[in-house]
Amino acid sequence: MKQSANKTFQCQAFVNLVHDTPGITPQEEMEIINCFKPLSLRNKEFFLKEGEICKRIAYVCRGCLCYFRLFENGKKSVIQFAFEDWWVGDLESFLNNKPSANFWQSLENSELIYISSNDFEKLMNTSRAFQSVFITKTRTAYIKSLERSAKDKSQSGKERYLRMINDHPQIINRVPHYDVAAYLGITPESLSRIRHKLATRQR
Amino acid sequence: MKQSANKTFQCQAFVNLVHDTPGITPQEEMEIINCFKPLSLRNKEFFLKEGEICKRIAYVCRGCLCYFRLFENGKKSVIQFAFEDWWVGDLESFLNNKPSANFWQSLENSELIYISSNDFEKLMNTSRAFQSVFITKTRTAYIKSLERSAKDKSQSGKERYLRMINDHPQIINRVPHYDVAAYLGITPESLSRIRHKLATRQR
Repeated sequence: MKQSANKTFQCQAFVNLVHDTPGITPQEEMEIINCFKPLSLRNKEFFLKEGEICKRIAYVCRGCLCYFRLFENGKKSVIQFAFEDWWVGDLESFLNNKPSANFWQSLENSELIYISSNDFEKLMNTSRAFQSVFITKTRTAYIKSLERSAKDKSQSGKERYLRMINDHPQIINRVPHYDVAAYLGITPESLSRIRHKLATRQR
Repeated sequence: MKQSANKTFQCQAFVNLVHDTPGITPQEEMEIINCFKPLSLRNKEFFLKEGEICKRIAYVCRGCLCYFRLFENGKKSVIQFAFEDWWVGDLESFLNNKPSANFWQSLENSELIYISSNDFEKLMNTSRAFQSVFITKTRTAYIKSLERSAKDKSQSGKERYLRMINDHPQIINRVPHYDVAAYLGITPESLSRIRHKLATRQR
């Protein structure tokens, strides 16, 4: 894990995102951007491990990460993937200062920008625009998570696979087979069968 | 659906909940309580139907409700149940004023107290304590929903059933078999097999 010595801000997508925040003042914009620092992760490197307290939230400028949990029975459950323009962090650990039950691991060499919990708290108290964005993002993520869960319960493995490639086509080319299966809640063998059947039908 | 004519506030658990809100002033306490109105639902009656805009959020004083979605393939997916001291409403519809994709239906004769979207918005602007509770509740619900989803993916139907009766033992006695199966994401037949096997083992 390498914190870049280059202090010039590199992530234009993030600068635009902050600039487009409703009701933001130029001063808030500057304050927010100054709180984020660059961070490079090599492929397979961890942003967060189970048992650690999550002290940072990060925005993905380039790359791909996997948010997962390991259970006592040895099973891995992938909660979500994060690509460019997504946020990574463990909310429960970050906000409540408790050990995380989950991992965030890089699946490619990735470039992120992160904010520390201290700076996060400072901005939540001083910037109404920042506070509002965080609240809205959390709420949207919650609504989406309920929707995903409702669909997951009513769909077969194949239906969940088709929905996944429709909603997030980049997963297919950037995520290992084993992690895709753990995201869909099926075995790697079942995923192979689904892929094989669909490929045969398309010929 | 019957809005009680009796204006005296009946739900002591809710009064206590409001009173115990961190940092609340006596004036805020009064304002919040005055915004909530009683509502009675008969068994099977709907609090919200798909396609309607959710104009109220309610607190369950007594009873049990089911939050579900019906898919085009005819499948029903139960997102959650709500018992005493739970909240019901469709956040996406309520906050964004758009038709709900889901239903909330009573599974027993139930007593609720609700707040309208207008009063909700008013309180969010005037009461810091109310705003803070709503934000924290949404965040906690999101964290729990991610956790449930991670566990669901890694567990078999039987494991999900055992977890459900451990976390929410009241479901067994108060929810119809078909809805329990739709909550677990399995067929009613699979649920019968799981129940039969567990009952046989316990003898």
